[in-house]
Amino acid sequence: MAVSMDDDVPLILTLEDGGSGASAPLDDLDREELPNENGGSYDVVNDASSPAAGDCCAQQGSARHNWEMNYQEAAIYLQEGENNDKFFTHPKNAKALAAYLFVHNHLFYLMELSTALLLLLLSLCEAPAVPMLRLGIFVHATLELFALIVVVFELSMKMRWLGFQTFIRHKRTMVKTCVLFVQFIEAIVVLVRQTSHVRITRALRCIFLVDCRYCGAVRRNLRQIFQSLPPFIDILLLLLFFMVIFAILGFYLFSPNHSDPYFNTLENSLVNLFVLLTTSNFPDVMMPSYARNPWSCVFFIVYLSIELYFIMNLLLAVVFDTFNDIEKRKFKSLLLHKRTAIQHAYRLLITKQRPSGISFKHFEGLLRFYKPRMCARERYLTFKALNQSNTPLLSLKDFYNFYEVVGLKWKAKRNREHWFDDLPRTAFLIFKGNRQCFPDSMYTVVAVNGIWILVETFMLQGGNFFSRNVPWSYIVFLTIYGVELLLKSTGLGPVEYLSSGWNLFDFSVTLFAFLGLMALAFNMEPFYFIVVLRPLQLLRLFKLKKRYRNVLDTMFELFPRMASLGLTLLIFYYCFAIVGMEFFAGVVYPNCCNTSTVADSYRWLNHTVGNKTVVEEGYYYLNNFDNILNSFVTLFELTVVNDWYIIMEGVTSQTTHWSRLYFMIFYIVTMVVMTIIVAFILDAFVFRMNYTRKNQDSEEDNGIVLEKEISKEEVIGIIELYKRSSAALEIAQLQKMVLQMDKYGQLSAVFLGRRSRTKSDLSMKMYEEEIQ
Amino acid sequence: MAVSMDDDVPLILTLEDGGSGASAPLDDLDREELPNENGGSYDVVNDASSPAAGDCCAQQGSARHNWEMNYQEAAIYLQEGENNDKFFTHPKNAKALAAYLFVHNHLFYLMELSTALLLLLLSLCEAPAVPMLRLGIFVHATLELFALIVVVFELSMKMRWLGFQTFIRHKRTMVKTCVLFVQFIEAIVVLVRQTSHVRITRALRCIFLVDCRYCGAVRRNLRQIFQSLPPFIDILLLLLFFMVIFAILGFYLFSPNHSDPYFNTLENSLVNLFVLLTTSNFPDVMMPSYARNPWSCVFFIVYLSIELYFIMNLLLAVVFDTFNDIEKRKFKSLLLHKRTAIQHAYRLLITKQRPSGISFKHFEGLLRFYKPRMCARERYLTFKALNQSNTPLLSLKDFYNFYEVVGLKWKAKRNREHWFDDLPRTAFLIFKGNRQCFPDSMYTVVAVNGIWILVETFMLQGGNFFSRNVPWSYIVFLTIYGVELLLKSTGLGPVEYLSSGWNLFDFSVTLFAFLGLMALAFNMEPFYFIVVLRPLQLLRLFKLKKRYRNVLDTMFELFPRMASLGLTLLIFYYCFAIVGMEFFAGVVYPNCCNTSTVADSYRWLNHTVGNKTVVEEGYYYLNNFDNILNSFVTLFELTVVNDWYIIMEGVTSQTTHWSRLYFMIFYIVTMVVMTIIVAFILDAFVFRMNYTRKNQDSEEDNGIVLEKEISKEEVIGIIELYKRSSAALEIAQLQKMVLQMDKYGQLSAVFLGRRSRTKSDLSMKMYEEEIQ
Repeated sequence: MAVSMDDDVPLILTLEDGGSGASAPLDDLDREELPNENGGSYDVVNDASSPAAGDCCAQQGSARHNWEMNYQEAAIYLQEGENNDKFFTHPKNAKALAAYLFVHNHLFYLMELSTALLLLLLSLCEAPAVPMLRLGIFVHATLELFALIVVVFELSMKMRWLGFQTFIRHKRTMVKTCVLFVQFIEAIVVLVRQTSHVRITRALRCIFLVDCRYCGAVRRNLRQIFQSLPPFIDILLLLLFFMVIFAILGFYLFSPNHSDPYFNTLENSLVNLFVLLTTSNFPDVMMPSYARNPWSCVFFIVYLSIELYFIMNLLLAVVFDTFNDIEKRKFKSLLLHKRTAIQHAYRLLITKQRPSGISFKHFEGLLRFYKPRMCARERYLTFKALNQSNTPLLSLKDFYNFYEVVGLKWKAKRNREHWFDDLPRTAFLIFKGNRQCFPDSMYTVVAVNGIWILVETFMLQGGNFFSRNVPWSYIVFLTIYGVELLLKSTGLGPVEYLSSGWNLFDFSVTLFAFLGLMALAFNMEPFYFIVVLRPLQLLRLFKLKKRYRNVLDTMFELFPRMASLGLTLLIFYYCFAIVGMEFFAGVVYPNCCNTSTVADSYRWLNHTVGNKTVVEEGYYYLNNFDNILNSFVTLFELTVVNDWYIIMEGVTSQTTHWSRLYFMIFYIVTMVVMTIIVAFILDAFVFRMNYTRKNQDSEEDNGIVLEKEISKEEVIGIIELYKRSSAALEIAQLQKMVLQMDKYGQLSAVFLGRRSRTKSDLSMKMYEEEIQ
Repeated sequence: MAVSMDDDVPLILTLEDGGSGASAPLDDLDREELPNENGGSYDVVNDASSPAAGDCCAQQGSARHNWEMNYQEAAIYLQEGENNDKFFTHPKNAKALAAYLFVHNHLFYLMELSTALLLLLLSLCEAPAVPMLRLGIFVHATLELFALIVVVFELSMKMRWLGFQTFIRHKRTMVKTCVLFVQFIEAIVVLVRQTSHVRITRALRCIFLVDCRYCGAVRRNLRQIFQSLPPFIDILLLLLFFMVIFAILGFYLFSPNHSDPYFNTLENSLVNLFVLLTTSNFPDVMMPSYARNPWSCVFFIVYLSIELYFIMNLLLAVVFDTFNDIEKRKFKSLLLHKRTAIQHAYRLLITKQRPSGISFKHFEGLLRFYKPRMCARERYLTFKALNQSNTPLLSLKDFYNFYEVVGLKWKAKRNREHWFDDLPRTAFLIFKGNRQCFPDSMYTVVAVNGIWILVETFMLQGGNFFSRNVPWSYIVFLTIYGVELLLKSTGLGPVEYLSSGWNLFDFSVTLFAFLGLMALAFNMEPFYFIVVLRPLQLLRLFKLKKRYRNVLDTMFELFPRMASLGLTLLIFYYCFAIVGMEFFAGVVYPNCCNTSTVADSYRWLNHTVGNKTVVEEGYYYLNNFDNILNSFVTLFELTVVNDWYIIMEGVTSQTTHWSRLYFMIFYIVTMVVMTIIVAFILDAFVFRMNYTRKNQDSEEDNGIVLEKEISKEEVIGIIELYKRSSAALEIAQLQKMVLQMDKYGQLSAVFLGRRSRTKSDLSMKMYEEEIQ
């Protein structure tokens, strides 16, 4: 490829000249969609007297400056596309650019995140605090005020970027401002009164976290959850309606039975049928009436069949359907947004002389701003990977793949098939001779180890099993794993060895086992738990079967999305935990509920039978809202649903009947979120399985892989290019590459670009047909 | 349409003449697929000297006989297509035909079903019998022998039809024969020894039910369940694997805590983690270790997140996916089978003279065998509905829709829009004036009634609420409903009124309310429960919103399929109930398990505190396997899962550790079946919702509706046709129709064909693209 250094002029400057012929490549852009068709580049650029093509020597410096501005703006467009920022917040002049750059960098994002986390973590130390972390009111209120002032600073910086008009029209930011205001006043009140009042508003602190740049996925989840609500509520009403009908029926049928405490009033009847919906009090709720008349079980069977097995599944179906529909629409609009961003960037990078595409010089300029860390070789490889047509210019169609390609990690392809190719000659021959033997024998060792651990554990029936003497089996297996680890890491080189997830897993388990051995040998009791992690080694066996590999791969691919869903759930937990602590802190304690129906679960007796002290413990008093950590555990227990009514009844017996509302609402909220998580997992796996079924013949895929070859001439060409712009670092890197090629006598080098598959890649394939 | 009575000759007879030109319409049949290309019709037909076209007067009787045989064979082909019978069991000669007809009629099917049911119901009276139904050993063993002999008779009849070769190659029939043999021997042993031995083989009696013609859907479900098993088992192994790893970890971590009974041995650790998977013992299982060290909750949270929230959902995804895939393939093959059947039938109905289609005469002949109950008008309407091209002949392409059209119920279209059009003039004007007012006011009445009942119930706090005096509100509301019912049924006519599901529902609820009133008025206590059904009236409110109507319609459409899934579940229940009764009958009784960890739930104490007798009842002893009805209830409780471990531990404490296997296997089996039910509901609703979303503008659909017009000439033409074949009944029917047309001065009558949508219609639409 010929790399030219003509001092070309950005097309965007010439747009004002009215040359409609020059903007031919823009024909496929939807002009209505471009917010600033003519004012696309910064004022600085527009102010510069646009150099006519040809006589440019004198203005070369200015032209380069113009290009730098164009590069930066294109990079900003691409970032906006990636982050789903609206284009009307795009900085329009140099001042706005400065403001934009101030609030769009990782330092600022980290500051946002850490203030939000600080505010959230404060609840560890506030009023019903975790005992170890209790802080004086003065201390935590001051901390809070400090954090809030930082938030004010961040908000004002954002306002500087957005401008007042956009700022007050942006709903989320306005909500945040209001919450900030309320929090500020409350924090000051706390400082002045020197005592904490009931501060349910603390539950709103989550919004500071949600608003963080890094929590974009959480915001999207929340939005999707709220959008799924209307149909969900419809079905919920159906559910509640049947519940009311059955409550009336149940009350009429079973209240004449005085030994039945579940249906003696209409309220009890309703509450117990709600709990029955979660199956939590089944079969107990049926037993008194069943004991009197066996046919009363029909009532419960019909109720459960309709409510639990039919309507609850309907609920899942509705959420599944709505969620998928929203997901699809969202993905489409995101894709369109990215495309628009790419179009904007493209328009800034093409030149008047060659309006049909982007040359490498300008692409490289873009990448310097978009990904400053990328080295020269990678920039060129990205360009080559994008360039499908093998012309020196990148067309808009090629450029559309920008986001997919720019994330690839490039590595020289090594011409070896097996990990043992680089081992010394003898070892190589041994492994080559029985290629399949080594992994097979390793699997055998792992399996034997597993059975060994199982048998060993089965033989120890309780007692102190951490004997002084390290068992010999432990040493034997650890040695084998150690040897394998050494061999493989020698063969592959430590960096490449650790770049595979499975190898990393092997390494860490072996390391843990080694640390456990040390702990045993040097008798460090607190670290004994490490020894206990040994069975995890068995997970290696799952590499053996394709379905499991598929499952685990999908799991890893989905991990970021699952994490964001988990975080969303945690945010709900936080809100409920704060509310729970404000209302229910300290209401549950041993023997608190002796008058309620769940007295047994809260009973703590310490009585003497004969000459032995018998402790009867109903441990449920531990499920309390006494501090935020306890609240989280309690809420997790409520999420798991089983026996949640014991916690509810315990709290209710100490407070009012209305407390039940808290628990019921929590149940419904977690039901929505869990349903969405289930829908999400279902969807992803069903897609993956369909995909695998369709591509059964193709070998398994390790994410996205691209292969590109660079010839020596190309490298020399790029060096020339860099020499003109005097980029010493890049030149040095590239010259090193040339030297290496010379050393091995190669005329070209092959590189592999890799990245793991993301949800977006999956969605792209899923909705391929529909999007077209 | 001209209906000719030419004595045409069946094409199939002329095939032997080698006229390949005549078989042109068969070109699109896959000849390899036809089992008896040349011997397609019965030997009788082939034996008859095939009349050459043209001179046929003498042999007219024979030709008609030939045609009758052809009609019958075509009808049999179509039946085979409908029932998914393989074509190699198609009767090939007159003897086989007799055998075929013997085993293929509703009488025989009913006999099959009733013997199967008798055998199943016997377990109500055998050894651990329901007290009221206990029979002497001699009686029930004789009954069983009798039923088994009937089964032998049925089997031998089937063998006569299938022939010995096919019979022993048919797997299901062979299994049935073996089971029959075993049952026979056991029944005789019981009769001889005059005592019941351990007869687990009774669980196999289900096969007699499964083999019934009417249980085809159950067979298909079972097949699909078994086919979904391999991937299911893979994921189940993953689940169990993690369980083992966590059991070892849990044992090491928590067994030093002596107050923790859940992890003191490896076996306990495993069992409790299995139960934890069902969440049934959470949070109790966590409490002892949580009380000692709060961080131990991490173990449980991680376990539940991996096992319950991830792998269990994965299991659902796998089953969902496999089930859908099988469903799709099965549907495709069924469709192909039906098409082949239609091709076979088509080939038998076309004539040598007009090989391009079926004339009405022959179509009518076919229907006489295929649906003897159909009247002449309906036959002609079916023919017209199939005939898309308006030619007198039915092409193969038209004929492919046979199964969809033949199920339609035809009714004269009445030219009225509202139910009140036929009311007397004044009433008509009243209702016409405020068209929407009447239903609206009815909904208001229902809503008011609902609130009334709710408030009334809320005011009664226990006690005897069936007062002697019938409350006036009851009478008022009942009067309103009664008037509405009368008005509507007068307007629509009673038959049409009751043909709508919603009206039927209204009618029965009002009837029940009336019966309840009678019961109250005449003080008949045992019927008080009818009064209690009043709130069901509220269900009418769900007609108001489209989403609910959609949900309820889908529910009704899915009902047959759901019923077959439910029956499948019941069959599993039966097997487990028999096994449970054989092993666990009588082991659980009050105070049986005082040494176990679940003693409280089985305690029954009757002690005196002061001068009051206090009864402490842990009712779990009622969840036993003492007879088959109790077993079913117990198994339902196990299906609901909550607190199932109490039942398991109770039984285990009275028998051996190995009893747990029974409960665990039952859990896994119901998990599979329930997962499939969930997958099925999910799938159907998601499809329905997508479908509704796509067709939002089209009005809502009430099943499949077709409209056809018949002119007077056409009717007269058909009468002519029937006159030649002297079918007096049909002629009378048709003449009545002509008279009616004359009476109203109509030249034609319009008929509407209706049927409710079935799963197959939905599937057809779902897989439309893929099938093409």
